[in-house]
Amino acid sequence: MSSTAFTFDTEDVLFTYFDQLRIHERLGECERYADFDRDIYETVVEELYKLARDVFAPINASGDREGCSLDDEGNVTVPKGYKEAWDQMREGGWTAPRAEPELGGGGMPSVIGAFFSEVMSGANMSLQMYVGLSTAAARVIRKYGLEQLAKPVAEKIFTGEWGGTMCLTEAGAGSSVGDNRTKATPSPDEDQVWLLEGEKIFITGGDSNLVSNICHLVLARTPGSPEGTKGLSLFVVPKFWFDPATLELGERNGAHVLKLEHKMGIKGSATCVLGLGSRGPCRGWMVGKEREGIRMMFDMMNEARIGVGIQGLAAGSAAFQYARSYVHERVQGTSLKQIRDPEARRVPIVQHPDVRRMLMDQKVLVQTMRAMAYRLAMTDDIAEAHPDEDTRAKLHRRVDLLVPIVKSMCTDLGFNVAVTGVQIFGGYGFTQEFPVEQLVRDAKIQSIYEGTNGIQALDLLGRKMRMEGGRLFMEWMQDAKAEVEAAQTEGFVDQASALGKAIDAVAAAAMHIASVGQRDIEEAMLQAVPFLNAFGYTVLGQEALDQARVAKKKIADSGETNFLKGKLLNLDYYVATYLPHVIASSKAIRAGNVSCLDPALFTE
Amino acid sequence: MSSTAFTFDTEDVLFTYFDQLRIHERLGECERYADFDRDIYETVVEELYKLARDVFAPINASGDREGCSLDDEGNVTVPKGYKEAWDQMREGGWTAPRAEPELGGGGMPSVIGAFFSEVMSGANMSLQMYVGLSTAAARVIRKYGLEQLAKPVAEKIFTGEWGGTMCLTEAGAGSSVGDNRTKATPSPDEDQVWLLEGEKIFITGGDSNLVSNICHLVLARTPGSPEGTKGLSLFVVPKFWFDPATLELGERNGAHVLKLEHKMGIKGSATCVLGLGSRGPCRGWMVGKEREGIRMMFDMMNEARIGVGIQGLAAGSAAFQYARSYVHERVQGTSLKQIRDPEARRVPIVQHPDVRRMLMDQKVLVQTMRAMAYRLAMTDDIAEAHPDEDTRAKLHRRVDLLVPIVKSMCTDLGFNVAVTGVQIFGGYGFTQEFPVEQLVRDAKIQSIYEGTNGIQALDLLGRKMRMEGGRLFMEWMQDAKAEVEAAQTEGFVDQASALGKAIDAVAAAAMHIASVGQRDIEEAMLQAVPFLNAFGYTVLGQEALDQARVAKKKIADSGETNFLKGKLLNLDYYVATYLPHVIASSKAIRAGNVSCLDPALFTE
Repeated sequence: MSSTAFTFDTEDVLFTYFDQLRIHERLGECERYADFDRDIYETVVEELYKLARDVFAPINASGDREGCSLDDEGNVTVPKGYKEAWDQMREGGWTAPRAEPELGGGGMPSVIGAFFSEVMSGANMSLQMYVGLSTAAARVIRKYGLEQLAKPVAEKIFTGEWGGTMCLTEAGAGSSVGDNRTKATPSPDEDQVWLLEGEKIFITGGDSNLVSNICHLVLARTPGSPEGTKGLSLFVVPKFWFDPATLELGERNGAHVLKLEHKMGIKGSATCVLGLGSRGPCRGWMVGKEREGIRMMFDMMNEARIGVGIQGLAAGSAAFQYARSYVHERVQGTSLKQIRDPEARRVPIVQHPDVRRMLMDQKVLVQTMRAMAYRLAMTDDIAEAHPDEDTRAKLHRRVDLLVPIVKSMCTDLGFNVAVTGVQIFGGYGFTQEFPVEQLVRDAKIQSIYEGTNGIQALDLLGRKMRMEGGRLFMEWMQDAKAEVEAAQTEGFVDQASALGKAIDAVAAAAMHIASVGQRDIEEAMLQAVPFLNAFGYTVLGQEALDQARVAKKKIADSGETNFLKGKLLNLDYYVATYLPHVIASSKAIRAGNVSCLDPALFTE
Repeated sequence: MSSTAFTFDTEDVLFTYFDQLRIHERLGECERYADFDRDIYETVVEELYKLARDVFAPINASGDREGCSLDDEGNVTVPKGYKEAWDQMREGGWTAPRAEPELGGGGMPSVIGAFFSEVMSGANMSLQMYVGLSTAAARVIRKYGLEQLAKPVAEKIFTGEWGGTMCLTEAGAGSSVGDNRTKATPSPDEDQVWLLEGEKIFITGGDSNLVSNICHLVLARTPGSPEGTKGLSLFVVPKFWFDPATLELGERNGAHVLKLEHKMGIKGSATCVLGLGSRGPCRGWMVGKEREGIRMMFDMMNEARIGVGIQGLAAGSAAFQYARSYVHERVQGTSLKQIRDPEARRVPIVQHPDVRRMLMDQKVLVQTMRAMAYRLAMTDDIAEAHPDEDTRAKLHRRVDLLVPIVKSMCTDLGFNVAVTGVQIFGGYGFTQEFPVEQLVRDAKIQSIYEGTNGIQALDLLGRKMRMEGGRLFMEWMQDAKAEVEAAQTEGFVDQASALGKAIDAVAAAAMHIASVGQRDIEEAMLQAVPFLNAFGYTVLGQEALDQARVAKKKIADSGETNFLKGKLLNLDYYVATYLPHVIASSKAIRAGNVSCLDPALFTE
């Protein structure tokens, strides 16, 4: 059945890229991307979609059923077919679309990387994680690693010959990364080499048979370093030791997978407990300067968090695609208008209003999340590459502000959209004959890792809203209001006005919380998640409005299509359905209820 | 760790039973329950909790991992330990607390059955389903079966020697039950015996090694019967044929499990494809009169739907209990007030405001859902057993109105509460070391089976709201308003006023939809789910208010306790957090957006 076949809404991606965001024009202003034109981007979209559909998707369910296995030597075997898919991706040169071409990458902007992540993760989240984490580690090594290591190791990873991991979490140090206990001491025998001791948990791709070597990026504390995050340094710890000059692999290093986690989802992704030094000496090289580990991690954080947001989007987007196909296949009941006639024609469920309501909800959320996440990726690209310093600075501020929103909204709503997918499939959705239940299970981790969504909200409210005296938020509001005004002149009077009220409601909530925060930090931070959500729904509303404006112009230019009309319908649905709840959330925040802080509750 | 040990909030159950609902007094007015007093009920609660904790819960995770298996003869083997637990339950006489004592039951009211279902399902939903479905089938047989069968067969099932199933769904007949294709023809050889042919799917407990025989209740169409639901009759089809006089088992009947579904959750519950007549003749007796199958099913429907609602409550309630224990065990980070001090004491996560916010949300939803669901069960008890006819009739109307709300809200919110449980557990919540991820997987089916929540909403809006010219809703509103007024005189001025506004908002939404419905049924029914939710949140708000009123009186009488103060805090949280969204939902409904019905969307 076609509802079990992976598809992707490339029409929406192309609209978002070229009609809405106009990436070919805006990125063209940056020298780094001057050579890319619309044709190239379109070809990349097409090729990546094929790879996702033909190579990644077919082994998604089987990988889930089989999972990973661990042998006594700490070697992980990934599910059948993963290695072949990995190699096909390598052959196509797709392991690192964004990395610099001289190191084997495609030199593409992040906004293209966003599609890469969405389509690959939607097709097979577990397999995509090996790619995503490896290249993230490689970028850190590339940027901060020892000179003799940086480029050659990064190249090995970008080309998919080696892998990489990020080793932050420990049993007692999850959200509280500063509580890391792993130790690093200078090797008495070798220059520039450190010996590591400790245990890291929840290490994604901590080992695999996809690659011949793995470079673990490990946060650890050097002798005499202070407690907390400021005492942490970063190390690259290879599975097999190697000579940086030749990159030839030497002896097995003392970094061993001790255990695989059994998880609700992403079963094809090896989530490892990694022992450092427990089965023989564990050697590593320092990355960057001592005690600057956290700074480097923070430096990669925006990118990583956008990446997880896009994973959330991917779960929702894949679920919506499966559902929009299934509703034509599945025949059940009659039209509501003929419900009393037992002889009436049976109809595909797409004709039932409540099914259409669920599909609409999926569609609007997926398409606005996509616009929001892709826009943020493009903003990040321009913030890095634009010739004008002020433009770069302003865009960096915008990225800082919106990263926690994209991470949190896309993972929460992506999960919800996947859950709606199960509901549309009915009883079948609960079975493993159809791919939607796996999407739900796979997606659930996204609201937790890379900073839980609670941590994102603290980051937004406690850091981003307060940076530079609130400038980030003020700038956003100014731009948002300007869009509202422009939309009003274009005929979106009611819709823009509703969005304007939502923006005001978010601002009012922000003011209220700021004033509470001067009195009591806990009371203020209690509203962090509700505030992020109210803000996030408003940002999604901006995208709905923006897409409708673009669609309206395009319709005026070249006529109406179902797709373009769909963007106008999206806006009206969003304004009617979601914006009233932003007002309600703001009201709830300002009600300032602190029931849960009462010491009478949740006693031991 | 205690966060992996099943616990139950019996304090809240006792408060709900004896302080809020006063079941011992109200049921005492019904002769049928006159012999039960508070002591008996308390003992039952205690004993059932022990059974759930000590017998059901310990095999919950192992049953999930192992699942069920099917042999070539169509025999299902359930997970290890299930049979022993089943037998222990039988020995204790707990298989059918509500059935009549002369047939092996406990003669208890439904409101006690609600606790039975909640605690057992929270401990082990898969295992509990064998109990729940069997007794439901037995009640139908008891009430409508052939005289020579009714009592003896019901007794066999009530005592857990035999099992029972409900066989409604077919591949082309899920929500649209009238599309059933299974045929029943009179046996040419035997009086009163019918021969069945067809295939039923999603049959819970379609076979198991828990019992020596299984009676399937099968909907099928007899020769010459019309299309649709009105042509369906009901049959009891045993796994092993038997002589009704002796109940001795004879030959294997032609009802065979052809396949087990592989599911997201409830893996210990055998979900079967049941072939009727495909491996030899399948014989059955008719239950009730010909073509009255649907009426009998409808007759059991309220009870079954309340039961599924309680399963949803159970998932949420179990998740909350695990979480409230875990937050004391898990140490992570420092108090927000000391976040800049790396030397600050590390605290259990219960001290973090956002964790407390999540716990609060769980607590309020679980406790108000419990009150709502238990109250409905009690209402059903009194509606059946009260000496006064008018009282019975009014309470029947109330049950009819609220059943879809209880089914839908408790399953959707129970699932959400379980998801919140995973979030509180963080990365560990995603692993199978802790029980919360299984709760999420197990619970997902509840919003789908026994009438999807979309069907519930259609039932509410299309049937219940229109019955007797809207009388059911008007009566509810009158009573709700009276409660609001009473609460205002007791000092809950603001909270009652907020609830009053929510009631008005629901009424306004109902009026709006009714007027739309006169013009376009599809436009009206598009709002069915949003309407049910707005109504449902208002009903939960009623329970929050009612519990606070009861708690306030009790505090005045006998002093404040943490528990009682918690009920006052619940109300304030609920009013601040949820009621503004009821107003917003009503606004969204009245906005009347019909985007999704546009034919431009969701084309093939």
